[in-house]
Amino acid sequence: MLTADAPLVLLQHGGLDNLSGKTGLAMLRYRHGPIVAVIDPAHAGCSLEAITGIPRVVPVVASMAEALAYGPQVAVVGLAPSGGRLPLEMRADVVAGLQAGLNLASGLHSRLGDDPTFAAARQEGAWIWDLRQEPEGLEVAAARCAALPCRRVLAVGSDMAVGKMSACLELLAAARRRSLDARFVGTGQAGILISGQGVALDAVRVDYAAGAVEQAVLEAAAGAGPEALVLVEGQGSLCHPGSTATLPLIRGSQPTDLLLVHRAGQGHVRTRPGAVPVAIPALSEVIAANEAVAALGRPDGRRPRVRAIAVNSANLEPEAAAAALAQIRADTGLVCADPVREGADRLLQALMEP
Amino acid sequence: MLTADAPLVLLQHGGLDNLSGKTGLAMLRYRHGPIVAVIDPAHAGCSLEAITGIPRVVPVVASMAEALAYGPQVAVVGLAPSGGRLPLEMRADVVAGLQAGLNLASGLHSRLGDDPTFAAARQEGAWIWDLRQEPEGLEVAAARCAALPCRRVLAVGSDMAVGKMSACLELLAAARRRSLDARFVGTGQAGILISGQGVALDAVRVDYAAGAVEQAVLEAAAGAGPEALVLVEGQGSLCHPGSTATLPLIRGSQPTDLLLVHRAGQGHVRTRPGAVPVAIPALSEVIAANEAVAALGRPDGRRPRVRAIAVNSANLEPEAAAAALAQIRADTGLVCADPVREGADRLLQALMEP
Repeated sequence: MLTADAPLVLLQHGGLDNLSGKTGLAMLRYRHGPIVAVIDPAHAGCSLEAITGIPRVVPVVASMAEALAYGPQVAVVGLAPSGGRLPLEMRADVVAGLQAGLNLASGLHSRLGDDPTFAAARQEGAWIWDLRQEPEGLEVAAARCAALPCRRVLAVGSDMAVGKMSACLELLAAARRRSLDARFVGTGQAGILISGQGVALDAVRVDYAAGAVEQAVLEAAAGAGPEALVLVEGQGSLCHPGSTATLPLIRGSQPTDLLLVHRAGQGHVRTRPGAVPVAIPALSEVIAANEAVAALGRPDGRRPRVRAIAVNSANLEPEAAAAALAQIRADTGLVCADPVREGADRLLQALMEP
Repeated sequence: MLTADAPLVLLQHGGLDNLSGKTGLAMLRYRHGPIVAVIDPAHAGCSLEAITGIPRVVPVVASMAEALAYGPQVAVVGLAPSGGRLPLEMRADVVAGLQAGLNLASGLHSRLGDDPTFAAARQEGAWIWDLRQEPEGLEVAAARCAALPCRRVLAVGSDMAVGKMSACLELLAAARRRSLDARFVGTGQAGILISGQGVALDAVRVDYAAGAVEQAVLEAAAGAGPEALVLVEGQGSLCHPGSTATLPLIRGSQPTDLLLVHRAGQGHVRTRPGAVPVAIPALSEVIAANEAVAALGRPDGRRPRVRAIAVNSANLEPEAAAAALAQIRADTGLVCADPVREGADRLLQALMEP
């Protein structure tokens, strides 16, 4: 639906300088295709790079009326507000975009396609894509990915939101620079919007969760040979008390190798304000638990290993980051690198070793 | 909704002598409250015990018209057909029951309450309970069960459908015979229908799966003191390639102890016909993987252990069963017993040790 080269406008109202806008910010950072305008009335006229630190030149405008001048074909909701409903201040611009003939893509929990105002505003031939819905026709997983000839690397995290998608997208870029056949399976809304394919795992029922991953990986891996690399975006963490996604990701993708993603210096998972803190144990224990789970439920008898650690050191100064990486390397004996800071070449090399 | 003493009739059409009727068969085996009739035209007039082996005297009749003579208040769909839709041959009896003023309970995937014919047939004051629906108002889990003072035993399996519910219900009965404060949290349709409470985990979205378990356990554990025992029905298995449920059950219930359930002699998990076989590894590895997962995501630093193994030996003759149990005991060093065959007293004792 959302082709790689479709020019799009981000509905980013109030979410250019905080985590509620993380979907749009990820698209600004990682989408190769054109993003022709960003709507955020609070920052209209400002430099995108000055607000976000993302080195991309995109006009920030106050309304859809202004954005239309830049020729978008798709309006994308870039916010992921808690509760998953469309922010009220965004409605008028959504309607204006639809009336102007734009398509609409949204990863909100609430279905925009079911909104009668939006349905009426949509022009003939235009679509509304609510990607955070359970796909139709799912089946219970049956380890079908184990028969694929390609490598399948799954990112697992020491917490939610530590940078699993970024690590995978940096690996994808590094692999393509080497002319490898590399593919990406999005499993969250940003990953799906950036790549145009995948499955919104958090919206799938438990019964079909591994089956939904299996189906998405099979689709992405179609025609991939033994030299190809399929990168499966991770979600959640085995260490988080509220997270379920790691297990169906492991079962559905039947990974050949694992990539651990960890934020340098983080000692506890991030839970609800007021909840009792939950410690992240030694990374060696996190690795052992993920490997123990990944060794089960397989027809191929393979025991996938964590082959490298992507360390998110965005919160550290360069020297502190280097020290943190050295410590993790010493503790685990694994190749460690911050793929956003230094690129993913070393991680890729560790993952591609025989 | 379904109170413990409500007299009910089972809609068991074509499912008295095969696995499609397992929900109703489990109710016949474990529900303490009255089951006044079973509808199965194929076996009308036959002895229930002769057909099912379950030592319970309940008339088997051909239709709802006949069943009404026994005074049921609730009609319960006892089938779990693949696909989850109401079998066509059952519709007339469902309508007849509703028209006669009965309530209706169903664990099918398709919502009977949304069927216009059934909605029209329902009498004022009667309810239709579609239990296999995601509860409203769920939150992401936050390890709240870790703060409960009671013991929380979760059943984990070496495969799906090995007898986790039966083991928990036998433990419940054994604990109540000792006058312990014991409670049961149903997590599948049979367990919910038998106990009248719980959550149909397979119908919950991944995002809320652990939260749904957390909420159900908190409800069941209300007022339970340190001496109380909460038994959480397991679902699925870490060994099964299509199963996701074990992880949210572990995270949501924050178990203090684990009970492994295994079918004697079973070497592979049961998957879709034609799928590549998936081996069950040595039970020591199954135990280690479940314990590794259960040690993570906890605010209390507890490392729950598998304290005993419930062995389902229904498919073996007595001597072969005894030999199988002795072998598992030797391999694992744990207390092993078949709770259906010999009662759950020894398992309970192992679980209640300090």
